[in-house]
Amino acid sequence: MDMHLLTRELQVKNKSKIVMLVADGLGGLPMEPGGKTELESAKTPNLSALAKRGVQGLSIPVKPGIAPGSGPGHLGLFGYDPLKYQIGRGALEATGIGFELQPGDVAIRCNFCTLDASGNISDRRAGRISSEESAPLAISLRQVKIPGVEIFVEPVKEHRFVVVFRAAGLGGNVKDTDPQATGVPPLDPVAEDAASVRTAEIAKEFLKQAKVILKGHPKANFHTMRGFANKPDLAPFDTVYGLRAAAIAVYPMYKGLARLVGMKIVGSATTLAEQFEVLKQAWNDYDFFFIHFKYTDSTGEDGNFAEKVKRIEELDSALPALTSLGPDVLIVTGDHSTPSYLKSHSWHPVPTLLVSDCCRPDPHTTFNETTAITGGLGQFEAQYLMLLALSNAGRMGKFGA
Amino acid sequence: MDMHLLTRELQVKNKSKIVMLVADGLGGLPMEPGGKTELESAKTPNLSALAKRGVQGLSIPVKPGIAPGSGPGHLGLFGYDPLKYQIGRGALEATGIGFELQPGDVAIRCNFCTLDASGNISDRRAGRISSEESAPLAISLRQVKIPGVEIFVEPVKEHRFVVVFRAAGLGGNVKDTDPQATGVPPLDPVAEDAASVRTAEIAKEFLKQAKVILKGHPKANFHTMRGFANKPDLAPFDTVYGLRAAAIAVYPMYKGLARLVGMKIVGSATTLAEQFEVLKQAWNDYDFFFIHFKYTDSTGEDGNFAEKVKRIEELDSALPALTSLGPDVLIVTGDHSTPSYLKSHSWHPVPTLLVSDCCRPDPHTTFNETTAITGGLGQFEAQYLMLLALSNAGRMGKFGA
Repeated sequence: MDMHLLTRELQVKNKSKIVMLVADGLGGLPMEPGGKTELESAKTPNLSALAKRGVQGLSIPVKPGIAPGSGPGHLGLFGYDPLKYQIGRGALEATGIGFELQPGDVAIRCNFCTLDASGNISDRRAGRISSEESAPLAISLRQVKIPGVEIFVEPVKEHRFVVVFRAAGLGGNVKDTDPQATGVPPLDPVAEDAASVRTAEIAKEFLKQAKVILKGHPKANFHTMRGFANKPDLAPFDTVYGLRAAAIAVYPMYKGLARLVGMKIVGSATTLAEQFEVLKQAWNDYDFFFIHFKYTDSTGEDGNFAEKVKRIEELDSALPALTSLGPDVLIVTGDHSTPSYLKSHSWHPVPTLLVSDCCRPDPHTTFNETTAITGGLGQFEAQYLMLLALSNAGRMGKFGA
Repeated sequence: MDMHLLTRELQVKNKSKIVMLVADGLGGLPMEPGGKTELESAKTPNLSALAKRGVQGLSIPVKPGIAPGSGPGHLGLFGYDPLKYQIGRGALEATGIGFELQPGDVAIRCNFCTLDASGNISDRRAGRISSEESAPLAISLRQVKIPGVEIFVEPVKEHRFVVVFRAAGLGGNVKDTDPQATGVPPLDPVAEDAASVRTAEIAKEFLKQAKVILKGHPKANFHTMRGFANKPDLAPFDTVYGLRAAAIAVYPMYKGLARLVGMKIVGSATTLAEQFEVLKQAWNDYDFFFIHFKYTDSTGEDGNFAEKVKRIEELDSALPALTSLGPDVLIVTGDHSTPSYLKSHSWHPVPTLLVSDCCRPDPHTTFNETTAITGGLGQFEAQYLMLLALSNAGRMGKFGA
């Protein structure tokens, strides 16, 4: 059952402040048998102080054994069942570059490619053309005009760019035109349902005009279209939780994910200290704050154990500026684990700490993967964390009489 | 949501080896307040060594409070939601005697019974006729011939035998002919859906001919038919997980269950040492190995605490032959608990140990029901164990971008 059916009904408004601090990829692994994890290795006196007042546990991002991407990882933390609410590839790509999708938009991932003299694909990525070369080419495609459709073309990186069609009644179910092979021509865009017939026609016309514009370019003389997707239909935070929600993030992907669930993006901070300063400025205007810290993930992805430890310590050091604001509910968690040992997102449940005046503290005085095993929150699916946040903030009424 | 929708998409192939060692009915109970369980009483140095390297927890076979039979117990471990995928009684009975069901087969549990002079059932089990007496009678029913249908009749035990109909398009939804009462005649087989009309007709004809063959037997002069069931439609391991899977089991039921999910039955071992020798021989030909050890269950069913302890110690002693093969992922678990105290399968969650290089070990140095409570895997439904196995083996890609 969708928990939002409950939260829509049971939500209560009050003056409480909830802060969710997401250290991306927080969970880790030891580098050798018997070793410590990154979080266990870091000196974290401020987290320890919170652990004494709080309750901790392990958050399972999706289900046991499933390593999520950033999309499902954050949807879970935001309380949207990540198996039910899936963000299509095109929509996630647009979100990741900070494009503000509107309801009904169709977003498409595009790759420049090379066609040979007979019209077959000879290189599906146009020789991995550089961003410097491809960005102006992508922008040149803004010349494409189709009556009744607003069209956006945004460069991404190397051979990749995003196209968004904006018009009424466009379905997002259109097959990829990338044949996933060379020596054959690109496929035509084909609608997979009646609602997407017009989308496929628009895509066909776009490709026709693009061929003319790109003609003659030695590498990128055409492009494919993949991952057609509508903006996902995610009811916003104020509706499902009764929360005015703000996101304080540095990177476009996380701003984009927050925007998809109706959060307002506030400030333009680049360091955690600046993010907490933005938090202070915005304190009176919102009920819920999502603060995203990227570097616990990126250092883990790099396999840089020592640097991930440092980034955790950086986060710990910055905490007093946050705690001094006195949030009614403070949550420290991650959207998934990113162990330096694996250099990738992983399935391991994420140490999660919740502090409130009524959180029923557990006996732990530190916070890490091992203490969290026996924490008072147990192991729980991330999608329930928002329910805990609301309840600890006095923002959820009783279910049933 | 069916996790196989994810594993079909996210599966990755590599050279890793996964071993799932199932000690049937592993979990137990103390015999008196303050006492130890069978697993806590046993000397298990090899399991302790694995506990130091591994992560443990408690596997809930179906849902809390549900004691499963062997069918749902194993389906859960194999990652098939045991509430969604149910094996019909007839199909399980056929599986249990080692009959290889083909897709579309209809299997039926039959009981010899006694009819009185007026055709009413006077004994629903034919005086619990002995196996020696009933087996030839069952075999005599192989004389039944019905055009267009291949018919198999297999003795089981005492008054029980199995009939299988093989023909195209036979549905398995036919009502039992056993009226569950004496003093009344057996019921006619009645189809419960259109697809099963022909099955009911065949059953009726079978019963007609059987009556002639059995006529005059003092006890078993007729039989009832119950639990009509098609072979369950379980997508095989290689499809849902990308695993070439082998089963090394001694008893027909477990070979049969493994066969239902597409495992190959390898070897003909009767002791654990022989099973591990078969494992060694088959090591290069498969990715996943299911090894079944029966005696932790049968001793529990007998209420023989001391013998169950011995059998656990036997399993522990045999382990080095397994661990020396260096599986990438080793799981030790059970399909359910069988406490000697209860002399039956129980609902208690099952101590489960997983060892891999990236399992995030917990602090435990022994392995039993008590340590598992505070193990790093927490309590989890058995159906997620295969996801953990795949991820720990590097065989699952990321969900979502």
